[in-house]
Formats: sequence, structure tokens, C-alpha cells
Amino acid sequence: MISVSIEGPLATIALDAPATRNALGLVGWQALADAVEQVAASSARALILRSAAPGMFCSGSNLREIAALADHADLRAPFRRAMRDAMEPLAALPIATIALVEGDCFGAGVALALACDMRIASPRAAFAVTPAKLGITYPQEDVARLVALIGRGQAARMLYGAGRIDADEAARIGLVEVLADDAVAVAQGLAGQVAANAPGSVASLKAMVLRDSPSPQFDAAFDQAFAGADFCEGLAAFRERRTPAFEDVAPIDANHTRS
Amino acid sequence: MISVSIEGPLATIALDAPATRNALGLVGWQALADAVEQVAASSARALILRSAAPGMFCSGSNLREIAALADHADLRAPFRRAMRDAMEPLAALPIATIALVEGDCFGAGVALALACDMRIASPRAAFAVTPAKLGITYPQEDVARLVALIGRGQAARMLYGAGRIDADEAARIGLVEVLADDAVAVAQGLAGQVAANAPGSVASLKAMVLRDSPSPQFDAAFDQAFAGADFCEGLAAFRERRTPAFEDVAPIDANHTRS
Amino acid sequence: MISVSIEGPLATIALDAPATRNALGLVGWQALADAVEQVAASSARALILRSAAPGMFCSGSNLREIAALADHADLRAPFRRAMRDAMEPLAALPIATIALVEGDCFGAGVALALACDMRIASPRAAFAVTPAKLGITYPQEDVARLVALIGRGQAARMLYGAGRIDADEAARIGLVEVLADDAVAVAQGLAGQVAANAPGSVASLKAMVLRDSPSPQFDAAFDQAFAGADFCEGLAAFRERRTPAFEDVAPIDANHTRS
Repeated sequence: MISVSIEGPLATIALDAPATRNALGLVGWQALADAVEQVAASSARALILRSAAPGMFCSGSNLREIAALADHADLRAPFRRAMRDAMEPLAALPIATIALVEGDCFGAGVALALACDMRIASPRAAFAVTPAKLGITYPQEDVARLVALIGRGQAARMLYGAGRIDADEAARIGLVEVLADDAVAVAQGLAGQVAANAPGSVASLKAMVLRDSPSPQFDAAFDQAFAGADFCEGLAAFRERRTPAFEDVAPIDANHTRS
Repeated sequence: MISVSIEGPLATIALDAPATRNALGLVGWQALADAVEQVAASSARALILRSAAPGMFCSGSNLREIAALADHADLRAPFRRAMRDAMEPLAALPIATIALVEGDCFGAGVALALACDMRIASPRAAFAVTPAKLGITYPQEDVARLVALIGRGQAARMLYGAGRIDADEAARIGLVEVLADDAVAVAQGLAGQVAANAPGSVASLKAMVLRDSPSPQFDAAFDQAFAGADFCEGLAAFRERRTPAFEDVAPIDANHTRS
Repeated sequence: MISVSIEGPLATIALDAPATRNALGLVGWQALADAVEQVAASSARALILRSAAPGMFCSGSNLREIAALADHADLRAPFRRAMRDAMEPLAALPIATIALVEGDCFGAGVALALACDMRIASPRAAFAVTPAKLGITYPQEDVARLVALIGRGQAARMLYGAGRIDADEAARIGLVEVLADDAVAVAQGLAGQVAANAPGSVASLKAMVLRDSPSPQFDAAFDQAFAGADFCEGLAAFRERRTPAFEDVAPIDANHTRS
């Protein structure tokens, strides 16, 4: 249903339930939480979250299961917590995380993409946040991430209208960071670029990106980093030209490219 | 001066003072506050705020009236409060609100558009935030909404430069969510799309979009929604195919379309 | 190394160390802090921060100097504070500030551009935030400004990947407000536009843009402004048509224009 693979510095979590276009039920959310834990315990430096089958991403929560919540009040909080227990550890992973979206990304599938640091879409990607169609709401953390990413106006349009937007529109409004014909290569290139950098730097920078308020710990981390082995190595690599000089730094492997 | 009409689920507030291109004075702000109250008390599920006359939106505060504030210190706070008493209840309406901008949107007119959830513009739309030209400032809530929507950099450019931007530039910087030749049809289509969704969902989602901080009430609302009639209806509609499956969900009726 | 010039209402701070493409070391940061203080003490109404030599902006911190931080723990906090002592007063200047970026803008150079209110780029501009390449981090205030400007997703891409983005991509993701072939003219035009407006208005509006939370002081400033000489002058200019009517307001001198 969900597979985890770790090849060198790159972890991949693949949703693998093509019959439901990767809809997730209670068991699925728990499997995802386990998968995230596995990645957290590994030495991976970047994670790609994707569909195992081509042309899809995640069609959201399993509708049959959430239908049961109408009659079973006692299952509602556990359902909410199961989603959160997968989503929040994913969002908090101290490595770079990339959602690779090559098809439909609906309902809780959008929340999943939002819990990643970056979203790389192929032209077949399509997005819809559909709870208002069903008379339900959306987890507050996911609403907050949507608003943080695309602003209140576009979030309102997606949440209240619950309409579908295509890949071009998703790129225009900032719901995906990169739209590319070769989304797989772009996602892998970006993951490789991150993995080549210092993991301690990425973890520290990510902690700052995710936090809203200032903290003395970030100043301490700033100072401390100069004492680290990664800095020695970084400087050495720079001096020996094993990495390019700043001026020759490789172009980001992920421009908004459509032929 | 300001008219309210409610047709089924759709409310429309139309500014109707074409001689001043819908400039608003004290009486106008009060009339707007009344209009918003009327909409709040109705069963409308979406609101379009627009000009009754074509080719305009709102030219801002009535200049003759604000000129009087130079000599009448006692009128300044009431003027500020009159604007706020229209603007904040508009921003807080628990239904989806759309500003339809088909012409000049200047000064306090921009604040009015910002108090709506979404902004749909026609190619004739033009925007300018002009207080710095006149030696005055702008209500802090409106500055906050401008920054939240377009970011500090573009807000700085609009507020400190006070220059005019056209519809294309407004779409580029995210000041309007959709720019379309047929802005009226797009706004009505989006309003209809929202109105077809569950009003309780829209109200809950909007409360989350407008709030910055987490709250246990949103979790409670999330759980509660599964007990609601809207969810029953939503599920039934889905099962009977009265609404399309998620994968066939209608494209959002409001892409950035220019011929 | 750093020059300050003030011509009428326009201040210019020019980085002038072309041999290192305007890399900044401890002495450079202190010189910049001094330059900012000089501008703050002047009657300038707008500041352009740029390179004295064409085709560059700032290549970041002086690498030789930061290399020394590996072995000299006692120099780390002073280095961090020297950057901050230049950056924060620049960010807090009560006049409009524009970074004119006509070439490489790397590492701490990006932080410098982010500390300005607006960023105008020429097609030769290129950006990279490179600490993760070197095993170090980035000052937390600069991370916060980056996230505020381009959102968490694009900030993640720039910070964790540390790749280079070109001027078009920078404009697309909102890292620069304006990209123009004639970036110099656009920056000067925008500075002139701001300088023609009321400085008290610009200062008040900027205080609101930079603050996140509401404050009664902004309401007081709103009311007070109507008593000011700038408002008298603004009204008079408007009435005598010395400034155009709102409807005829000059187009913002800074659209996203590429031939």
C-alpha cells in the first residue's frame, strides 16, 4: 500500500494503491506515519513523496471510511489524529521533503503535498480541496499551510469553491514551486542537490523556515556551525574547487520549464 | 447610493454613485455597513461587491469630506471608525465574498476589495493606494490585509510609490486572484460554485483562513461536521452521482484567462 | 569600499569592491552600518543600494574572513552582530529603500537585498543563498524576511538546494518586485515617485508594513495626519491640479517589462 525505499541519501515514499488512486484510510495514514518514522531513522538526506503508479498522486481520504464517521462519533477524533500523526511528523522531518505530483491531488492529498517542503508538478497534475463539497471541514494545520503558501485569497478560492485547478494554474498561484515536463528528473535533481549539501545546515535552516518567531537558539546554531566538520569540509571543497565558486554555482535544477 | 439585492443564494452589493466614480463619504460608509448587515441577516451564501455602473469600482474616500478633517479634529476618529465599521463586518461575513473590479479601484476602494475574500478583475481594472500622495496614512487593518495578500515588497511599492498598476500587473503580483475578459461571468460562476457547497463548511473554513493561530475549536468543528445533515447530503449526492466524483470535479470556474 | 551620495531627496549607497564582486567582511559590514547611519541622518527620502561597478551586486561574505571563524570561536558572535548591525538599521530606515540588482547576488548579498523594501533586477541578476553548501546557516532575521517574501516553499528550495536562480525565475517567485531591461531607470523612477510623496506618510506606512501586530499608535497616526502640513499641501496640489486626480494617477513606473 505504501512502500519506503532508501537509496544512498535519497528516501522515497511511494503511495501504492492505484485502484483507489492512492486514497488513504485509517490503515493508510498509519502506514504513512510508519514510513515517515522509517525515513526519520535512516540516514537519508532528502525525501520524495510520490505515487508508485504513474499519472496520479493521492485522491484524498477513503470515502467509504469517512462515510462511516457519520454514524460512529467515537471514530471521528481517532480519524483526525491518524491524519495528523502522519502529516505533522512528515512536516517536521529535519531533511528536505519533496512532493512529486504527476496527477490528481485531491482532498487530503493536497494536505499531504503541503506537508512537504516543496512541490514539483508535471503538466498532468491537478488539485482540488473538496471538503466544502461534502459538508465537512479540513484540518486546521493544513488550512494554515495552504494559506501560508498561496495566500488568503487563493486559499479562499480553493477552499470555498472546491473547484479543480490544473498544473499551470497551480504554478501561477504558487501551489507548486516548480512545474516541469520532466517532473521526475527535476524532483530527483533537486533532491540530489540538497543531499550534496551539509545535512546539519539543511536541518537548521528548515527549523528557521518552519518557525515564525525569533529564538536565541538560531543565533547559537549560527555561531556553532563554524566549529563543525561540515564547515571544514565545505571550505576545503571550495578551495580545492571540488565545488564551484559561488559565482559559478550550478543553476537550480528546477526552473519552471514547459516546452 | 448603495443597493443590495439578494437572488436566491447570491447577494450583490452595488456601489451606485457614478458621478464620483463611487467615492464613499461618511454616509456612504454607513450605507455600506447597513448593506453588509442586511446580507449577514439574509440566507445568501455568497456576496459579490461591485459597481452598479460599468467600467468602475470605487475611487476611494470622498475627497471633499476628508478635506474637512484638516480643520475638524473631532471628525477624524468618527471617520476612521465609519470606514472600519463597514470594512471589518464585510471581512468577517461568514459567507464567501468576491470583489468584482471592472475599473478604477483607488485609495479606500483597494481596502474594500481587500476586505473581500477574493478579487476578480477585468482587463480595465486599475489599482492605486494613494494616501502618501495626500500626506495621510491608511487604516492599519487594510495595510495588514495588503501585506498578507501581496507580500511586503509589492505592498511597499504600492504604498510608498502610490503609483497606479494595471490589471495584468495586479494579477502578476497577486492583488487579484483572477483576471478574465469576462470577469462578471467568472465572478458569478465562482459565487455559484461556492453557493452549491455546504454553507457550514464554508463558514468553518473561512474562520480558519482568517485566524492566524491554532484553536481547539477547529478540531471540534472538524469532528462535529461528520454528524451534520450537510455531510449526509454530500455523501448521498456523491453516491448517486448527483455531484461528480472527486476525479471528475468541475474545473474551477475562474482561471486566469485572457484571449 | 562603500560610498554614500545624497543628491536632493535620493541617497545612494554603492558597494565598491569589484575585485571581490563586492564581498563584505567585518570592515565592510561596519562601513555599511556607517553608510546607513549617514543616510538616516540626512534628509533623503529614498535610498538605492547598488554596486558601483556594473554587472554585479554583492557576492556575499568575504570567504577568507569567515574561514577564520573555524578556529576563532571568539570572533563568531562579533561577526554575526556586525552583519546584523548593518542589516537591521537598513531594514528599519524610515524611508523607502530599493536594492538595484544588476548581477550576482549571493549569500549575505541576498540578505542585503531582502533588508531593502523593494528589489529591482536587471536581466543579468542571479541569486543564490549558499550557506548549506558551506556547512553553515543563515541569520534568522534574513531567513524570516526570505520566507515572508517568497513563501516557505520557494524559501526551502533556495535554502536547502542552495542553487542559483536567474532573474526571470526570481521575478516569477517574487524574490524581486520588478524585472526590467532598464533596471537603473526603473529604480530611479520609483525612488523619485516615492520622494515626491509625503515623507511622513511613507514613514507611517512603512512602520505598519514592517509590524505584524495591530497597535493603537497607528490609529493615532491616522487621525493626526489630517492635521499635518503635508495634508494641506497634498490637498492644495490636488485642487490646483498640480498633481493628477486619482483617476489620472501616473502609472507605477516599474512594471515587469522585458523586450
